Amino acid sequence: MTRISEISAAADELTITWQDGGVSRLPAVWLRDHCQMPSSRNPGNGQRLINITEIPADIEIAAASFSDDLLRVEFRPGGHVSEFTADWLSRNCYKLDLQPDDRSESGKILWQADSFDQGLPRCAYEAFREQPRARLAALGAVRDYGFVIIEGVPCESGRLLDVIDQFGFVRETNYGRFFDVRTRVDPNNLAYTNLGLGCHLDNPYRDPVPGLQLLHCLESSTEGGESILQDGFLAAARLREENPDHFALLSRHWINFRFADTDADLRSRAPLIEVDDRDQVVKVRFNNRSIDTIRLAPELMKRFYPAYRHYAEILERDELQIVFRLQAGELMLFDNTRVLHARKAYSTGGTRHLQGAYSDLDGLYSCLRKLEETAA
Amino acid sequence: MTRISEISAAADELTITWQDGGVSRLPAVWLRDHCQMPSSRNPGNGQRLINITEIPADIEIAAASFSDDLLRVEFRPGGHVSEFTADWLSRNCYKLDLQPDDRSESGKILWQADSFDQGLPRCAYEAFREQPRARLAALGAVRDYGFVIIEGVPCESGRLLDVIDQFGFVRETNYGRFFDVRTRVDPNNLAYTNLGLGCHLDNPYRDPVPGLQLLHCLESSTEGGESILQDGFLAAARLREENPDHFALLSRHWINFRFADTDADLRSRAPLIEVDDRDQVVKVRFNNRSIDTIRLAPELMKRFYPAYRHYAEILERDELQIVFRLQAGELMLFDNTRVLHARKAYSTGGTRHLQGAYSDLDGLYSCLRKLEETAA
Repeated sequence: MTRISEISAAADELTITWQDGGVSRLPAVWLRDHCQMPSSRNPGNGQRLINITEIPADIEIAAASFSDDLLRVEFRPGGHVSEFTADWLSRNCYKLDLQPDDRSESGKILWQADSFDQGLPRCAYEAFREQPRARLAALGAVRDYGFVIIEGVPCESGRLLDVIDQFGFVRETNYGRFFDVRTRVDPNNLAYTNLGLGCHLDNPYRDPVPGLQLLHCLESSTEGGESILQDGFLAAARLREENPDHFALLSRHWINFRFADTDADLRSRAPLIEVDDRDQVVKVRFNNRSIDTIRLAPELMKRFYPAYRHYAEILERDELQIVFRLQAGELMLFDNTRVLHARKAYSTGGTRHLQGAYSDLDGLYSCLRKLEETAA
Repeated sequence: MTRISEISAAADELTITWQDGGVSRLPAVWLRDHCQMPSSRNPGNGQRLINITEIPADIEIAAASFSDDLLRVEFRPGGHVSEFTADWLSRNCYKLDLQPDDRSESGKILWQADSFDQGLPRCAYEAFREQPRARLAALGAVRDYGFVIIEGVPCESGRLLDVIDQFGFVRETNYGRFFDVRTRVDPNNLAYTNLGLGCHLDNPYRDPVPGLQLLHCLESSTEGGESILQDGFLAAARLREENPDHFALLSRHWINFRFADTDADLRSRAPLIEVDDRDQVVKVRFNNRSIDTIRLAPELMKRFYPAYRHYAEILERDELQIVFRLQAGELMLFDNTRVLHARKAYSTGGTRHLQGAYSDLDGLYSCLRKLEETAA
């Protein structure tokens, strides 16, 4: 942590020079709006007690002073006084435009097939359940790599919900609180056949899409049926490197997704690659089975298809895919807004029985932050 | 429904002239990718059986013919033949760039205080539960207006979950499957005091944000505490009319939201006004209490704040707000990505007891489409 070396105040802006040489420029209205005093913020939970409309439109800095760890600002009109600790300032506005960000590609460790020479991120279920540090490491792997494999989850129906209980909440859908993935007579979804499935993300036809998926292997005695995972953020970054126009086409134009059976008719409009305000990837969607009619003007369509094909080709490259056999008792927990999954076709002899469930990322990130707070 | 009058085929594009004079231009690759034959689509659920990478990059139309209700296209290389019914074509590509869209502002009925001279959208709970047409009308009101008031929900704890069971699934959060809203000693959230709350949307600090909120009134004997609802899509449209630059600033730049207490630390980055690829509003977020540190470059910040203030001022205009008293037994079901809610301060005498819960829009829309299918 650095300390304040010098300040200079104009009516509309305060400039802080830090002891390490950094400079922060803070607009008057921003300072007033971010006042941390008990009259402006609930000290217990940090909720803001004022609305922007309660701050005079012509707010100015009337006076400012500092010690090395406290800044005092008086505003006019109104004469409100705010005090900010150097600690709060350095964490919140040392560089005012620097975004703390653990959700976009810039906060992730991107990977491909050869990234895991030391083995895949794994965690024993007993440790996950009982040791906060093991849970922190496993959930941290989901944040950083997008997945973790939890070993030794009892091969009993519904036990995957116990895993969710450790960090968040079940996202129930028309498939139930959890669902079985095995060969079915007359399946309503290709997942319930023994065919191979190409790399995809689940349920792009939902808005909101479930942010987390669990797949728990209860039985695995078929030939084939290996699992494949792939970093969709890396694939999107690869597309941008190889052809920025293709990346722009897929991130700027939204397409339709749909799944319909006798009970449900789910539809969404969203881009294949979703970016934030800095053009950083925050979510990807890809599922050839559930892309509905693509609707774009004809000339745009002719430019869109080569981009779509290019992205699909990248997603089929072996060097981007990790292939492994999910054993009975193993559970994959993965970020369904980032990590694509697939499976190879399997034999009709033997049994392959997985159970799946969905959850949301907000619960996992909240749990992770609380674990980090405790560990710190 | 219109019928095919004439076609003309080039190698890369087929043109259909319809009997009503409309013209559809369909690129060859789009036609192949949207083939509806059993080898390309699962007839049961419409899932696509082919991947874009299985279609030759140099796909062309080799031949095309039609009757007034069937189009036949042969492709090369490979010689694949597709047949499309005129019905499918007219529904899916009469105008290829026309988006069917019931989620953005363009698919909604925008409203303000004087829009409900005939009364607010209401439905009796018994009818909602037992009559598909009543349920369709109520859920249709949520799609079109963003809210409905359900009357006669028994004043028993947790009964609001039965309402969710009628159309979708509970979004459980750190607040539980449902939560109580009443005055609490040492509240962890301002909602649990008797203070008024300005117009806001719930939980912008979640990603994904819960798309639906329910508030069920169990007891209401205080003075004050009236409910306020407001159409956030109308407010955003008003901002765009009054100052397009302000609208652009709030839709292009993302800000941080946060809620933290002893159990949770929830954070998100998102825009105040979220638009789709056609600059149509699809979601709004506004909650002065839970906007975290706003981080933008200093010069941009000086332009952002007037836009933010302008939007907040629009949200405070009386002519945009409907004010009513939620009676015991009444339940508001509203779109938490569109409709802001607020409450007036209330007296310390008497009791005001609401229960709240969240759900997601995907379930509601799916249920609505199935009800429409049955009613048609």
